[in-house]
Amino acid sequence: MVTTRRTAAGAKKSASTRAVNNKTKTPAASHKDDEDVNGKPDGYSGANDVQTRATEAAFQPPIVAMSAALLVPLGALMFHVGKRNHEVGIQLAACTLVSVCGFLVTTYMVPLVGEKIKAKLYGVDIGKRGLGGPRDGERVPESLGIVSAMAFMISVGILQALFASSNGQMLEYNTALLSICFATLLGLVDDIIDIKWKHKLIIGIVMSLPMLLSYKGATTVLVPRPLIGALVKSGTDENDVALTALGKAVDALPSVHVQGEGALLDLGILYYGYMLALVVFCTNAVNIYAGINGIEVGQSIIMALSIAVVNLLDLEWRGASVEDVLSGDGSHHLFSLMLMLPFVATSAGLLVHNWYPARCFVGDVYPYYAGMTIATAAILGHFSKSLLFLILPQVVNFIYSVPQLFHMVPIPRHRLPRIDLRTGYLHPSKVAPGDDRDNMTLLCFALRIFGPMHERTLCVVLILLQVICAAIGIFLRHYVAGHIFRIPLS
Amino acid sequence: MVTTRRTAAGAKKSASTRAVNNKTKTPAASHKDDEDVNGKPDGYSGANDVQTRATEAAFQPPIVAMSAALLVPLGALMFHVGKRNHEVGIQLAACTLVSVCGFLVTTYMVPLVGEKIKAKLYGVDIGKRGLGGPRDGERVPESLGIVSAMAFMISVGILQALFASSNGQMLEYNTALLSICFATLLGLVDDIIDIKWKHKLIIGIVMSLPMLLSYKGATTVLVPRPLIGALVKSGTDENDVALTALGKAVDALPSVHVQGEGALLDLGILYYGYMLALVVFCTNAVNIYAGINGIEVGQSIIMALSIAVVNLLDLEWRGASVEDVLSGDGSHHLFSLMLMLPFVATSAGLLVHNWYPARCFVGDVYPYYAGMTIATAAILGHFSKSLLFLILPQVVNFIYSVPQLFHMVPIPRHRLPRIDLRTGYLHPSKVAPGDDRDNMTLLCFALRIFGPMHERTLCVVLILLQVICAAIGIFLRHYVAGHIFRIPLS
Repeated sequence: MVTTRRTAAGAKKSASTRAVNNKTKTPAASHKDDEDVNGKPDGYSGANDVQTRATEAAFQPPIVAMSAALLVPLGALMFHVGKRNHEVGIQLAACTLVSVCGFLVTTYMVPLVGEKIKAKLYGVDIGKRGLGGPRDGERVPESLGIVSAMAFMISVGILQALFASSNGQMLEYNTALLSICFATLLGLVDDIIDIKWKHKLIIGIVMSLPMLLSYKGATTVLVPRPLIGALVKSGTDENDVALTALGKAVDALPSVHVQGEGALLDLGILYYGYMLALVVFCTNAVNIYAGINGIEVGQSIIMALSIAVVNLLDLEWRGASVEDVLSGDGSHHLFSLMLMLPFVATSAGLLVHNWYPARCFVGDVYPYYAGMTIATAAILGHFSKSLLFLILPQVVNFIYSVPQLFHMVPIPRHRLPRIDLRTGYLHPSKVAPGDDRDNMTLLCFALRIFGPMHERTLCVVLILLQVICAAIGIFLRHYVAGHIFRIPLS
Repeated sequence: MVTTRRTAAGAKKSASTRAVNNKTKTPAASHKDDEDVNGKPDGYSGANDVQTRATEAAFQPPIVAMSAALLVPLGALMFHVGKRNHEVGIQLAACTLVSVCGFLVTTYMVPLVGEKIKAKLYGVDIGKRGLGGPRDGERVPESLGIVSAMAFMISVGILQALFASSNGQMLEYNTALLSICFATLLGLVDDIIDIKWKHKLIIGIVMSLPMLLSYKGATTVLVPRPLIGALVKSGTDENDVALTALGKAVDALPSVHVQGEGALLDLGILYYGYMLALVVFCTNAVNIYAGINGIEVGQSIIMALSIAVVNLLDLEWRGASVEDVLSGDGSHHLFSLMLMLPFVATSAGLLVHNWYPARCFVGDVYPYYAGMTIATAAILGHFSKSLLFLILPQVVNFIYSVPQLFHMVPIPRHRLPRIDLRTGYLHPSKVAPGDDRDNMTLLCFALRIFGPMHERTLCVVLILLQVICAAIGIFLRHYVAGHIFRIPLS
């Protein structure tokens, strides 16, 4: 029996993923073979390697304090909302309990599944390759997002069994779970066979149909105050209003409703188009904003937390009685919370193992699952318009990436930052050899602005950026929107 | 670069699956290596090998005639039902069209996906190993059930977009798709990491909750005529009935309703327990009745066809007007048809490539997906009790397998029949070396009864058995049940 073991796996990976599947070093490989594969000898030399030295010298993020800074205000807000309303309080308490269990199960299961999955799905951490660190060039199990996705779906299934009573609520839960389950399946299949981009798009659109068909919310957008005058001519009293020429032109496609001082634009079928685009955007947004340990899961957790806060603020604003709180879109906001809390918890369980230095990769399955979960929480929570304000870094990263995604600028196989083998710090990577332009991602942009950074520091910086953007988005939605739109947003 | 390529994949497979994942010969392997792996030299010698000679001498099943014998009566029945009722006719026509597309897409996609999936998921056809056939010992792509599952879900998603209008119908479609999608995901994960049996059971039960919670049908069973006397004492007129002592005892748990001459037993929560057991049974029934090319898909197609016929007979029996046909459980029967026709079509597309000699394996993903689809069609079609009559071979195979499944009798890693390397025919395999008992499967039992057979012949025999059992089941349900239960079954 020949002892050298190697897989034939080596299909093309999506542009920004961290893993490489072929020509990887395995524990059983000989030293001579290492040189052949990595092009350099294995330089690991105890604790004196570049990676360990760089990590020890780098900024040590206070993880516990950071987590507490996010979770304590959330908990206080939940307690405040739950205390005023018995039914909401019970649901929030049960959801918290289920989420904690989901966190523990995910944390426990990820290494166990990782050991087994490694035989078929694995990658190498190319952001540390050549630094001579403790696990330089070793196989890292891939696609562990599947564990958090399944723990999440089971958690939501339990919450559904506990709290969904009416047909409408059953439909809401089943629709959300179906969309998320299908996205997870698609992501996992993508990890196995690398589905072509156009096929993924077609399959994704067909499988968004159940959610869009089940959507029973408004299809209207409020016209911002400065634009109302362009659409509507005000008369002497409230009921005496008429459309301007532009207003009539716009009215030909969607319809314009005038109500009080505000103007509603009913987009009808166009709004469904918007939601479809949102689903496609969300399921791909995380995947193109990736490349360093912890960034996929970290950004998703912050997005989900900001959605949870929006839901809680909305429930808080509705007052104390059950009727007030769960009237109108109130029940949808509560449902959205029932998705976001288990999502945050099971993602955190995954992040424990995906944080620098990563002992597992999340695969394409995580970005797909996370993006669909976030889109679902926003659409079925009936605030799909506000979502874009909460995920501004993803929007900016996508727009910034467009020239490369559409091949107007060269795109390398991996867009992750370049590692400096002497310092162990990350630098912006170039779009092509000999081309001096940086890869068009927020990661490289941050390195250009703030200078070379340690991988973990860059991740913390980008997560902080996400927190700041989310805070601004929440502020805009809840305290400024009323002034722009004249009536409170629901 | 060393040219010998070998994977480290070799996790334990479920008892009856056909694939072996480790120590497999690959195209790049040297001849010397073949001897090491298979224990014998590669004996392929043109068309003169044992496999080719045995296949040429064996019974040549008339596939086209067999398919026509199944599909022509089904088509005639569909035409008859559709002609009498415009709305049903349109739905059946659209469903047929979508199903044909699903068949074509699956047939086209399976080889393409197979080429890509082979790098990570593959097996070796151990039922032909050593016969020196054209592809003896080669890698066969595994888990291709995922292609038919995804084509099926997309087909049903399209039908949902076309025909689901009310909240109730949306819920029905979403519930079915959710259950099936989750079963598919679980099956695929099982193919990748071999989930432990107890974990699969727990996950499966939690994920059956959405379907059980959405079930709004009856929870009653009719008491067979001979047993009514044991539960109920008849008085002088219809309304003057009383429970016997046994009837009162039974009434303590479920409740007994007396209605006309029949007696209804309302099982309440126990009925949900029955449905849960049915889901668990169905998702495992195909997996333990497997081991030769085409048997998993073949049996599933016959089961689905028999369910389709039951639904059509029920719609036919309801008369001509829309109200009659779609009243009561009529709409549920139509929904059940909307699941079964695309299932048959996409499974047939897979069978094209899985038929002897198999160019792909279906994986654990197919039995899981197929079993859940069949259980869903029966439960949401509101005839979960009759299902067991339609899948009698699976029930018998399970009961027969119990001593081995619960380790009262030794169980080998694979229970498939033993190949005779001289004749190329299959013989019953033994439970352990030196133990003279046959493996307790219908496959080995059929070989014991009818004598050694060619693999393809055995598959045809078992499919014919399935057809005969299904025909008897349909006859019992539609023409005999009325006499046993006194009132027509719905």
